[in-house]
Amino acid sequence: MIKVGVIGYGYWGPNLVRNFHEAESTSVGVVCDLDNELLEKVQRRYPTIATTTSLEQVLNDNSINAVAIATPISTHFNLALQALQANKHVLVEKPLADNVADCQVLIDEARERGLTLMVDHTFPYTEAVQKIKSLIDEGELGDILYYDSTRVNLGLFQSDVNVIWDLAVHDLSILEYLLGVKPEAVSATGISHVEGNPENMAYLTLHYPGKMIAHIHVNWLAPLKVRQCLIGGSEKMVVYDDTEVTEKVKVYDKGITVDQSADSIYEMRVGYRAGDMWVPHLHPGEALAEMVGEFARAIREEDTPLTDAESGMRIVRVMEAATESLRKNGEPIGLI
Amino acid sequence: MIKVGVIGYGYWGPNLVRNFHEAESTSVGVVCDLDNELLEKVQRRYPTIATTTSLEQVLNDNSINAVAIATPISTHFNLALQALQANKHVLVEKPLADNVADCQVLIDEARERGLTLMVDHTFPYTEAVQKIKSLIDEGELGDILYYDSTRVNLGLFQSDVNVIWDLAVHDLSILEYLLGVKPEAVSATGISHVEGNPENMAYLTLHYPGKMIAHIHVNWLAPLKVRQCLIGGSEKMVVYDDTEVTEKVKVYDKGITVDQSADSIYEMRVGYRAGDMWVPHLHPGEALAEMVGEFARAIREEDTPLTDAESGMRIVRVMEAATESLRKNGEPIGLI
Amino acid sequence: MIKVGVIGYGYWGPNLVRNFHEAESTSVGVVCDLDNELLEKVQRRYPTIATTTSLEQVLNDNSINAVAIATPISTHFNLALQALQANKHVLVEKPLADNVADCQVLIDEARERGLTLMVDHTFPYTEAVQKIKSLIDEGELGDILYYDSTRVNLGLFQSDVNVIWDLAVHDLSILEYLLGVKPEAVSATGISHVEGNPENMAYLTLHYPGKMIAHIHVNWLAPLKVRQCLIGGSEKMVVYDDTEVTEKVKVYDKGITVDQSADSIYEMRVGYRAGDMWVPHLHPGEALAEMVGEFARAIREEDTPLTDAESGMRIVRVMEAATESLRKNGEPIGLI
Amino acid sequence: MIKVGVIGYGYWGPNLVRNFHEAESTSVGVVCDLDNELLEKVQRRYPTIATTTSLEQVLNDNSINAVAIATPISTHFNLALQALQANKHVLVEKPLADNVADCQVLIDEARERGLTLMVDHTFPYTEAVQKIKSLIDEGELGDILYYDSTRVNLGLFQSDVNVIWDLAVHDLSILEYLLGVKPEAVSATGISHVEGNPENMAYLTLHYPGKMIAHIHVNWLAPLKVRQCLIGGSEKMVVYDDTEVTEKVKVYDKGITVDQSADSIYEMRVGYRAGDMWVPHLHPGEALAEMVGEFARAIREEDTPLTDAESGMRIVRVMEAATESLRKNGEPIGLI
Repeated sequence: MIKVGVIGYGYWGPNLVRNFHEAESTSVGVVCDLDNELLEKVQRRYPTIATTTSLEQVLNDNSINAVAIATPISTHFNLALQALQANKHVLVEKPLADNVADCQVLIDEARERGLTLMVDHTFPYTEAVQKIKSLIDEGELGDILYYDSTRVNLGLFQSDVNVIWDLAVHDLSILEYLLGVKPEAVSATGISHVEGNPENMAYLTLHYPGKMIAHIHVNWLAPLKVRQCLIGGSEKMVVYDDTEVTEKVKVYDKGITVDQSADSIYEMRVGYRAGDMWVPHLHPGEALAEMVGEFARAIREEDTPLTDAESGMRIVRVMEAATESLRKNGEPIGLI
Repeated sequence: MIKVGVIGYGYWGPNLVRNFHEAESTSVGVVCDLDNELLEKVQRRYPTIATTTSLEQVLNDNSINAVAIATPISTHFNLALQALQANKHVLVEKPLADNVADCQVLIDEARERGLTLMVDHTFPYTEAVQKIKSLIDEGELGDILYYDSTRVNLGLFQSDVNVIWDLAVHDLSILEYLLGVKPEAVSATGISHVEGNPENMAYLTLHYPGKMIAHIHVNWLAPLKVRQCLIGGSEKMVVYDDTEVTEKVKVYDKGITVDQSADSIYEMRVGYRAGDMWVPHLHPGEALAEMVGEFARAIREEDTPLTDAESGMRIVRVMEAATESLRKNGEPIGLI
Repeated sequence: MIKVGVIGYGYWGPNLVRNFHEAESTSVGVVCDLDNELLEKVQRRYPTIATTTSLEQVLNDNSINAVAIATPISTHFNLALQALQANKHVLVEKPLADNVADCQVLIDEARERGLTLMVDHTFPYTEAVQKIKSLIDEGELGDILYYDSTRVNLGLFQSDVNVIWDLAVHDLSILEYLLGVKPEAVSATGISHVEGNPENMAYLTLHYPGKMIAHIHVNWLAPLKVRQCLIGGSEKMVVYDDTEVTEKVKVYDKGITVDQSADSIYEMRVGYRAGDMWVPHLHPGEALAEMVGEFARAIREEDTPLTDAESGMRIVRVMEAATESLRKNGEPIGLI
Repeated sequence: MIKVGVIGYGYWGPNLVRNFHEAESTSVGVVCDLDNELLEKVQRRYPTIATTTSLEQVLNDNSINAVAIATPISTHFNLALQALQANKHVLVEKPLADNVADCQVLIDEARERGLTLMVDHTFPYTEAVQKIKSLIDEGELGDILYYDSTRVNLGLFQSDVNVIWDLAVHDLSILEYLLGVKPEAVSATGISHVEGNPENMAYLTLHYPGKMIAHIHVNWLAPLKVRQCLIGGSEKMVVYDDTEVTEKVKVYDKGITVDQSADSIYEMRVGYRAGDMWVPHLHPGEALAEMVGEFARAIREEDTPLTDAESGMRIVRVMEAATESLRKNGEPIGLI
């Protein structure tokens, strides 16, 4: 049984506590937050879980094997580093840190100490994204031509990071999981509508090797909640709509046919192809429970977790570059 | 009664012929096309309209006052120039030409001869776009913060122009109509999935003075037909969905409230505001009929038409710059 | 080539004329209507088609082989009877007549003279309904358990017949086509909201032998247009939504599983079963063109057409009984 | 503080316990269920709440002021009667009992003892239904012409009651709340698809005095979850869709205009009227919390609660008559 200390009981912390509490292979030893009112909530709901405002108390408690960090992004690095130095396995709420250099420090620290360091990127643990992954891996979609995501709603304006770090991070983790290939450059545009605040809407284009492109539209100031993702393949195309209750993944047997005339390589005739549409049944289940299980498995088996820190750092690298491009009005920034 | 010669009876020509034929202030004198099969269709449907494969015959016919050009984009300039030189008023199917320099030549020619030169940008003549225009003009939406359009479907891959010139042109004409302000720069990304063909998907960001931004997503290789446009205002926001039959324009009384604390200019608190949603009733009507009427009115009153050639040239300028940016992976291109 | 005279050029007549005109095996010889303005429309669109206000002229014209009747329901019987007596094949716009006795007279007249008598029930000629038919015939859906249709909108209030005769007639023709079985009784309820007018909303339940039931909801006073039909099968279920542009037919692999415990026949455990959903691709095509083709084929081959008068009479029988039940607040009326 | 004993911790009990626990004016003293596993769940979640398998223990506990009953329908009467006889205020999960006679016994018992007897009909406590109620009361909709509800999904087949008692009960409680008028007769049809089980689909028509009609379609064997209710008024019409997250209530400014010509009372011309559509903003909130608050208020103020037992009995009367009509294939059954 892995005993977890959860740092931060704000927006996401309660979900982590509930899942670590209900999982068979983990328990929650202590919840740490600076806000006593939040700790009282913990006490009412979970009378058997200890609470504290002292980080040291968590880190010094030898019965605690692992620490889960669900605090503001700017604090991820310091908290994770201290936890690693106290020899705890660490799960960090996404993103791993707010810059690549800090990610590298964390990765090195964890590697030297033989500790598990994992990021809570939740989407790869959902049934919907896993179904799309299996469609890609089985060749159902053919070559992947593009990934186009719209992730907008009237959302909380954050003051420490722009909307990329809050919303695009999800698409970047989905892309990491679905494709085994890294983007070569990113171009981003966006705007801040509140003086002195970071950008509240942004558009990212990821340039991949070959004929693949990805685009992510994120916006905290939209009248509608949209979570629509189009994935174009040379054989079939997927529409993934996370706001749908039961029909999240639709597979369209649609595409183009390219006929090359005998006369010239330049004379292409491109025709349509339209066939059936198919909605695979997804078994309901909480992604977070699976994520928690993966964290426990990685610790137990001393194995690399699915959403490991290396992957987390690659995602941070894209967001760092995208933020730079955004300030340069779309100028492409290379990603090594 | 203005007598019109229509050049080109392919995809759009039949719509122009029907509308010029049915309008009270115009009639169709002759239809010109190189394809005799298409001309036979004209004869069957409109036994009273002459047909010809000879452009000269149209241009030399003194009973013809105006010429409407509905041919491939690359031929617009030559055909329009010849028609102007033959002293005909000219309506060109969108876009006006495939480069800015040619647009300027046409504009100069028309001005010198005192002829009406107009572009058939249809959307400003729709009830939906006109309703949005009136909402903006009456201040209902407040300051316009962004325009975000998704215009994708499984569409005909064109071999002479990229998808921007086919689809984004619509949004650019809507932006021209809705806003009285020009973009300062454009950044575009995109990709061609068929070797040797122009880009079949593209993303454009238009940078405007102040806090306004526009983004246009166009794609010929999408499994769904999407025509969704979000228009964010400081007071209200509009969702314009052209695929809806009756509820095309939705006005959301949603937005943010910004409270600045007394202590510091940097401490902003941004909150939500959510109110009613409202769908104005739109009177059905064919936009093309209104466009045809505007062409006739402009000729008759020797007035500048709504979608005049100057506006058409500004749209071509953006597309020219966007195509350049696209080849530079998003590098922003200034628009004077 | 079958030469057709079309009687009535109001709402539906123009569609019949266009389709008889464009079909290869038929032509339109004459259009007859009492309204000269409507006849002028015919002349403008089809300069080669004769027009007349005289029914006799049509019936006495020996070059006319067949007559299509698209007039108000109350006139169907008289016009069809005269046409048959003039030895014309007859196509009647749905329904065949406004009572069963008149239907029988027409059927007898046509049989004695060896003439084709067909009703223009259009839905069985649509791709969507034909796809559902093939799913049923191939056993994909299992036993049909129910048919539930909602067919409502803000529609024209008719003064001569209630809403059943205008809208439910479509579902009755679909049921005739899909199932090879007759209902045993009908129960109907409804109401008229305009004094002196027939009922503008109605609910019909058709009781079938075995475990099948059908329900039809029709309404001229609804704020939305709904055309949704649920077809429950023991294996799969279909949702047929005619307002959808491309995804009209959805096949759900959903249902129940019944486990009978060993102890008692009364102890059933009913569980759910949920699987994939599937949207078959439908080839676009005008149903009316197929209907016109079937009329021509039946005449040419002296064969019974798909929507023959016997089927049309069974539909009238249900509507007659439903109207009686409606006046008795739902009392079931037997159908033989 | 009202101390509540909750009987039954199956499907609905946990919701009642949570709401009574979290409300300021109530607390949960004890939870009673025959299933020890369910009681263990209570202990884990609410270590301070006592649990028992003995009803007597609850009824004999003088610190318990009120009892909430969330058990199978057939047990409602006996449990509620015993609770009243033990001088507890009683909240019964809907419906009050499975027949009118038993309802009357309960009502008499409560009245004699001066105890509050209330039914947990939840919908009248929702923001959506309350908004519709205020639209009706303020005359926005004009005269109510019809109520048409579709409430279907793939649901649990119950073995003790038919689908009317499970699903139509919601619409009947909404009708009770919205309208101040009783139906005069009910006609119902339906079918059971599982041998020996009660009807799993049913259609109810309620005949009201004047020009109002109500229809309710309920089905446990539908491939889709539908919760759509059309409410037709002489001025405006409402579409209430409970599956919508934010746009549950839509108000259509649509209807008909009736022009009576001078010549004759029988010559009505009915025309359409179409205007804007409007979606009022609803404040999110849990209906059950409001229901619990109303129960406490009624006890405290010795006042009649909104969903009192008299209303509950009227609803049972309709369901009893509908079940009788259903067995007679739609024959209308009078309601006094």
